[in-house]
Amino acid sequence: MDKSNIPSYKDIESAHRKIAHNIHETPVITCSAINGLAGASLFFKCENFQKAGAFKFRGASNAVLSLSDEDARKGVATHSSGNHAAALALAAKLRGIPAYIAMPETAPAIKKKAVAGYGAKIRFCQPTVESREDTLQKIIEETGATFIHAYNDFNIISGQGTAVKELLNQVKDLDVIVAPVGGGGLLSGTAIWAKHFNPGIRVIAGEPEKADDAYRSFKTGVLQPAVPPGSMADGLLMPLSDLTFSIIREYVDEIVTVSEESIVGAMQLIWERMKIIAEPSSAVALAAVIKKKHELKKVRTGIILSGGNVDLKKLPF
Amino acid sequence: MDKSNIPSYKDIESAHRKIAHNIHETPVITCSAINGLAGASLFFKCENFQKAGAFKFRGASNAVLSLSDEDARKGVATHSSGNHAAALALAAKLRGIPAYIAMPETAPAIKKKAVAGYGAKIRFCQPTVESREDTLQKIIEETGATFIHAYNDFNIISGQGTAVKELLNQVKDLDVIVAPVGGGGLLSGTAIWAKHFNPGIRVIAGEPEKADDAYRSFKTGVLQPAVPPGSMADGLLMPLSDLTFSIIREYVDEIVTVSEESIVGAMQLIWERMKIIAEPSSAVALAAVIKKKHELKKVRTGIILSGGNVDLKKLPF
Repeated sequence: MDKSNIPSYKDIESAHRKIAHNIHETPVITCSAINGLAGASLFFKCENFQKAGAFKFRGASNAVLSLSDEDARKGVATHSSGNHAAALALAAKLRGIPAYIAMPETAPAIKKKAVAGYGAKIRFCQPTVESREDTLQKIIEETGATFIHAYNDFNIISGQGTAVKELLNQVKDLDVIVAPVGGGGLLSGTAIWAKHFNPGIRVIAGEPEKADDAYRSFKTGVLQPAVPPGSMADGLLMPLSDLTFSIIREYVDEIVTVSEESIVGAMQLIWERMKIIAEPSSAVALAAVIKKKHELKKVRTGIILSGGNVDLKKLPF
Repeated sequence: MDKSNIPSYKDIESAHRKIAHNIHETPVITCSAINGLAGASLFFKCENFQKAGAFKFRGASNAVLSLSDEDARKGVATHSSGNHAAALALAAKLRGIPAYIAMPETAPAIKKKAVAGYGAKIRFCQPTVESREDTLQKIIEETGATFIHAYNDFNIISGQGTAVKELLNQVKDLDVIVAPVGGGGLLSGTAIWAKHFNPGIRVIAGEPEKADDAYRSFKTGVLQPAVPPGSMADGLLMPLSDLTFSIIREYVDEIVTVSEESIVGAMQLIWERMKIIAEPSSAVALAAVIKKKHELKKVRTGIILSGGNVDLKKLPF
């Protein structure tokens, strides 16, 4: 892979300057009850409070704001099961350009509602990679819109890296950073930034056992395809891309897989003890920390709570 | 009623000095999406993030810290369906004294668990006023513990007033304060403080239609008994006391009743848009604001989100 396609910390800095007026600088929350239970010292970066309810708005804003005026006029397009679609829709709305979304009919109702609420044009498809790509291709042929991939994209990865940039400013002396991994955009941006400023920091990813393609790619050194959807962590079902895989192989220390049961348990801890709403994909990061609690005892650990978009009518409790 | 039993703003100041090291100064959150929907300018004082998950910890801390060492040694006792019990249990634990709780068997599981988790001794009773009082009486005879009523208590009311004291420091120029009303402890402390510092501020209470005894007491001038439990807002089922009723008659401007449907709707808005967990009793305050939205247009309104203790297995969505 051509290394010039990989963002550096400078690209994350530049993304942050570009999107600073668009995004929220989200708060970092600690919870003594969860620290007590996990025997850890945890700092939660609350991207569930980000605009459009997830970190995805950072990357989407950077991608939209990086377009030339001429390209921007024709709009942006993507396929997404939810958070990236909502984020791109809002980022496009704020720039005053159209957004076209190919969305699986099976996406959670709250995510469909959010995308439509931001004024994007939705075209429904089947929940397969083929159907998503076919539908998207048709949209692009018809409109000339620029395709913004959810994570296999230089600007998206640079934008996602701004969350950990803020976190490391807000909390000093973190020893470990934990983020969930799906397609790998958040994890890539996180690892690039964290390792540049502190090569000794450990970057760990949490992934559902039932969507463990990143774990297997990481172990075997060969990019694995997505497994059939089986995890409740609906934001983590996509496979790594060649770009995110090459970044993760270079900068990430470990991928920890977690059971569905432990995802529900972690989510319940966050809801009951912190009184905030995090989606299952976010709880995966805490579940990974709990699985490794003997190693992380008293270690200062930052956790990226990636989003808070859940369908209240379909909770796993 | 003897006016010397009514706390003044000085008693709230004194309570705040006493409890400041015990409590969290909770954050104030705004939400542009809810402001847009309600056509209002709302500032949410997040007592759902308070220790033990509700504002009740303020009053309970003040009551426990106001005891002489001799009385404290024998412990404190109360009857409560939940948040006051948990708050008193934690406040007692922090002072290192016993807490005895008479608790209805019907109380939400999460509240029973919290009380037991703070080390209090629970004795279960029937969910009637008589059974609660009988059980409590027996506890007091056996232990010599001091009874701390959930709201008909000078120190409790003074402690609850510290929430709005913080709020008016955190947000300038509020025109209206809205709090839920059950027994009236929070509303009383809120109204005493707010009216002392700004006689022009409007103090409004929200109350469930299905537990509207405070509304009817306020309208008729005669203290009404509790209605049979019918509202999901389980923190608001107790009647006013002579003490809280006399304060509310003097300082509160209006009590607004809200339907169960509107409570669910307000709760859903808070969960989905703010990504935080508020219990039904807290959502009552937002439901009251939404009911009065034509009057409160663009008015700077503070809302006390009283607590975040919900049973995730029994949600109304």
